[in-house]
Amino acid sequence: MVEQEGNRQDLGFGTRADTTSRLLNKDGSFNVRHINQGFWNRLNIYPRLITMPWLPFLGWIFAAYMVANTFFALIYVGVGVDNMMGAENTQVSAFWSSFFFSAQTLTTVGYGHLAPRGFLMSSIAAFESMLGLLSFALATGLLYARFSRPTPHIRFSKVAVFAPYLDVNGWMFRIINERSNQLIDVEIEVSYSRMVTKPDGSRSRQYSILKLERNKVAFFPNNWTLVHAITPDSPMHDCTEEQLMDSDAEFLILLRAIDDTFSQMVHLRYSYRCDEVVWGAKFRPMFNGDTRTMVTVDLNKLDEYDLVPLN
Amino acid sequence: MVEQEGNRQDLGFGTRADTTSRLLNKDGSFNVRHINQGFWNRLNIYPRLITMPWLPFLGWIFAAYMVANTFFALIYVGVGVDNMMGAENTQVSAFWSSFFFSAQTLTTVGYGHLAPRGFLMSSIAAFESMLGLLSFALATGLLYARFSRPTPHIRFSKVAVFAPYLDVNGWMFRIINERSNQLIDVEIEVSYSRMVTKPDGSRSRQYSILKLERNKVAFFPNNWTLVHAITPDSPMHDCTEEQLMDSDAEFLILLRAIDDTFSQMVHLRYSYRCDEVVWGAKFRPMFNGDTRTMVTVDLNKLDEYDLVPLN
Amino acid sequence: MVEQEGNRQDLGFGTRADTTSRLLNKDGSFNVRHINQGFWNRLNIYPRLITMPWLPFLGWIFAAYMVANTFFALIYVGVGVDNMMGAENTQVSAFWSSFFFSAQTLTTVGYGHLAPRGFLMSSIAAFESMLGLLSFALATGLLYARFSRPTPHIRFSKVAVFAPYLDVNGWMFRIINERSNQLIDVEIEVSYSRMVTKPDGSRSRQYSILKLERNKVAFFPNNWTLVHAITPDSPMHDCTEEQLMDSDAEFLILLRAIDDTFSQMVHLRYSYRCDEVVWGAKFRPMFNGDTRTMVTVDLNKLDEYDLVPLN
Amino acid sequence: MVEQEGNRQDLGFGTRADTTSRLLNKDGSFNVRHINQGFWNRLNIYPRLITMPWLPFLGWIFAAYMVANTFFALIYVGVGVDNMMGAENTQVSAFWSSFFFSAQTLTTVGYGHLAPRGFLMSSIAAFESMLGLLSFALATGLLYARFSRPTPHIRFSKVAVFAPYLDVNGWMFRIINERSNQLIDVEIEVSYSRMVTKPDGSRSRQYSILKLERNKVAFFPNNWTLVHAITPDSPMHDCTEEQLMDSDAEFLILLRAIDDTFSQMVHLRYSYRCDEVVWGAKFRPMFNGDTRTMVTVDLNKLDEYDLVPLN
Repeated sequence: MVEQEGNRQDLGFGTRADTTSRLLNKDGSFNVRHINQGFWNRLNIYPRLITMPWLPFLGWIFAAYMVANTFFALIYVGVGVDNMMGAENTQVSAFWSSFFFSAQTLTTVGYGHLAPRGFLMSSIAAFESMLGLLSFALATGLLYARFSRPTPHIRFSKVAVFAPYLDVNGWMFRIINERSNQLIDVEIEVSYSRMVTKPDGSRSRQYSILKLERNKVAFFPNNWTLVHAITPDSPMHDCTEEQLMDSDAEFLILLRAIDDTFSQMVHLRYSYRCDEVVWGAKFRPMFNGDTRTMVTVDLNKLDEYDLVPLN
Repeated sequence: MVEQEGNRQDLGFGTRADTTSRLLNKDGSFNVRHINQGFWNRLNIYPRLITMPWLPFLGWIFAAYMVANTFFALIYVGVGVDNMMGAENTQVSAFWSSFFFSAQTLTTVGYGHLAPRGFLMSSIAAFESMLGLLSFALATGLLYARFSRPTPHIRFSKVAVFAPYLDVNGWMFRIINERSNQLIDVEIEVSYSRMVTKPDGSRSRQYSILKLERNKVAFFPNNWTLVHAITPDSPMHDCTEEQLMDSDAEFLILLRAIDDTFSQMVHLRYSYRCDEVVWGAKFRPMFNGDTRTMVTVDLNKLDEYDLVPLN
Repeated sequence: MVEQEGNRQDLGFGTRADTTSRLLNKDGSFNVRHINQGFWNRLNIYPRLITMPWLPFLGWIFAAYMVANTFFALIYVGVGVDNMMGAENTQVSAFWSSFFFSAQTLTTVGYGHLAPRGFLMSSIAAFESMLGLLSFALATGLLYARFSRPTPHIRFSKVAVFAPYLDVNGWMFRIINERSNQLIDVEIEVSYSRMVTKPDGSRSRQYSILKLERNKVAFFPNNWTLVHAITPDSPMHDCTEEQLMDSDAEFLILLRAIDDTFSQMVHLRYSYRCDEVVWGAKFRPMFNGDTRTMVTVDLNKLDEYDLVPLN
Repeated sequence: MVEQEGNRQDLGFGTRADTTSRLLNKDGSFNVRHINQGFWNRLNIYPRLITMPWLPFLGWIFAAYMVANTFFALIYVGVGVDNMMGAENTQVSAFWSSFFFSAQTLTTVGYGHLAPRGFLMSSIAAFESMLGLLSFALATGLLYARFSRPTPHIRFSKVAVFAPYLDVNGWMFRIINERSNQLIDVEIEVSYSRMVTKPDGSRSRQYSILKLERNKVAFFPNNWTLVHAITPDSPMHDCTEEQLMDSDAEFLILLRAIDDTFSQMVHLRYSYRCDEVVWGAKFRPMFNGDTRTMVTVDLNKLDEYDLVPLN
């Protein structure tokens, strides 16, 4: 029994995950909720700032800039704008003079038509300018991190298919690199997960790694069709479409590769639920025109397939 | 004999480590003191600045800023503030005028209501502004390094347990990812270390790698209970609680994983001493509510267990 | 049949790639065209800015600087230069005053002889100075990324050769590290690709990994000659120069290494087409002078060979 | 014969390296000279700036700063300081006024007591301030790269020893981590290189990997003594001190590890020449005081050994 346990292949989800909803969302996140996380862990600031889309990111930066300036403007007003040289010529209210002075200090542009006078005003300005440097440093780090974070742009075919393959059938899906920068040493692991009813009637989720016709390529210039041949030793052998649906089956995919531009590891998760598998279908070749001259791949054909009888 | 030696599994501590105190501290540092380190090696500036908490870090930066400004202020005073245009209008003493001028130079805010006059003053200011750029550059690097340093937020159960496992017993502990950013390819190595008395009466520390029910998972969305089954070939076979305590046993854990957000390797060390192992206890499931709809994990339940009879 | 498929060694090109032009260009890019890429994917900004040569890169930065300043200059002119203190003394037109003011704001140099007056002008300037910081931050990140990107400077011999090797013949090429920074754990994979005519007359591309006399070295201080011995089990056994040319043969090379200066993985692709293979030629040693005192390698000799009879 | 070749273990030096001087210098660089490198490859700017000591590095930066300012100063003088507002009050010559103005522009401190007047002067200043940003960005990148570059501070014992080991003898050396930041998964490869005289009288260098009692540790908190047992299958079996000297033997060491602070790979090369091996010596333990309370390692003892008779 101990030995058997050793062969479990649940990829880390655990047999308890007897949920009927999908385990892995389309965006690669897990369909799991954590409660009672610590405050900072739930906040998780840095990773969020790195992974959020550009618009909200720039929005946050602008907001922070406005808040900081307002905050310091109020302080300067409190100290008194009579301690600010040139405030009389700005043709704007005391608050806005302070606001713009703050902006000029924070960004270290420091025109000087506004300048601090007296100890208090000068100290606050000196402090703010230091904050300016640090926040700037921060922005630099964040922008760099956002850019340099390796994100593979791999598109998966909308559906997986059951297709005749050689003298048997095969479960297939295919992927393509949407970007021009190359991925090398691309490696793929597919796990087949489904609910099984134990003799005692209780249901639990089982997992098995699907053996792929090939699970690693050194280069990935074209599209790549991944094939699991339904041989007698396949966990899907003799499995019908109905059984697949009944068992809440889900195909979990983990992709590992190396981005050639930055020589960094990249990872991608994806999954196909049983209702995203087409039975008796064959992907159309994605090559376009005469491949003799130059191989041309049409990304729009990724999801195209023809219905065919199975073996 | 040479062959035997080849099979040593001390993870790198060496048999000499016959200390009665724990080998590995809770924070993952080693309970080892190095003496006669070189000055710079003991100082170890950069790693310290990177790993120290945020408050002291910012404190150091602020301190450096104050020191630098004071230093240059004194120089400017020495040169004479009559070489500083506008010093007469600042309404503060010569020193503070110089101090604020230094601050405005170091941060390159350079309002200009204070400006250098004459060769000496101008050269020093020119030099300081260059230092300003460099220190700023430094701050940028440090901030970025602090943020981008991958630190896994994995919580270990407070105690390990001896629990019935299948038809035998097992030594178990469990972990959970406190953060939302995913870890993948999580791999764990556990080494069982204890003092043994040789026939000649001398005591020395022995180590053995504990075979785990599974030592690697591709995904880590939920909690993970690691199990070492006490099979006849286990070094802990027939070991009683008393023997465990007498032998100063310690369980050393090395965790390797890949942070999915930054695609970086992360490492974690942890250890359980014999007095942190509960005999005849079983971890409570961490799942919360109805798992059929969505898997919900309650982090507060990580340390919860029930006492149970052993096989 | 399924088993056979499992042994395919096409490195990821796929058997469909029945093109007569080379698969891998000299610069390591693939001879594949993708159509219908998404806009951003085709643009692929960041990797481009990182990989483009220095001159165009600096050109783009300068262009961006000019465009931004012109853009803001027009806005300032619109707002009216009478809202800009000092504009009357610049001795240039309103546009150029605005242009230079914009430049001084964007770079945060902010002399102050030009300064904003009134709410509108001040706000725009405050906004531009923030943009200045961000763009600066961006430039920092880009420059750093460009520099720190590990690019191996390995030169491949212009041609590969068929040379006598021990008691048989061998297919050989050689490489040298042009730079002084060391590469370690250099690993090479060579795949032999050619068109074969199936019994049914259809032609398809076949691939086989070439077994190398050695495919990995820990150090790489000198030149390295890679040798595939034409033993009976070699896919090139009994292959004549004519057959090689007829089959559109191409030798695809993938090099993996670790740059010792930055401890980063580096990768390189290269290929030799059949017409770049010299039959019956032997590389000249690259050592120079008396190697007893110090090993001296002459990079100019990399491509030199002598014609020799084959075994 | 082809098979034999396959077993060569020269780590990448090649058998041609029949030099009598050491292959690997103490600093880990190779004793190899490359001639006819391309200009940029010989210059190899970036890696140099990263790896050079701090003092020269800062020297170069300061020099660049001076040169740039002088260069622009001359241009400004050429344009005429009458186009520079405030130049009349600086109390220094036209050149120095321009020099300091350049400095204030390059560092973007821009006090403004000096400011450009007229189109030409303004454009040049605008251009210089852009250069300022870029050079600053560059400095940031360089400083960060210098700091974050992982450099293991591992000290090797000055000499290797031949010591009795269990029931045979062993060749040993030992290492210690000088820093406090941990290295994990430390892996070591030792290659034994010596000149051998072929039957035909010609001498060539041979290499063999030395099997180590253990070549990898997960943790490295203490010192680590690496042992190659002289068993009958060892290439050093029956080798006497004289033979070792005659054969110009050298022990080449490659260390791989992972720096735990930054989770980065680190590498180190080292070598012992035959004249750095002491016959019949045993390293003294490095532990200090009572190890029962806490393990204390004394770095000064690294090189200490006692002479002992061999088995």
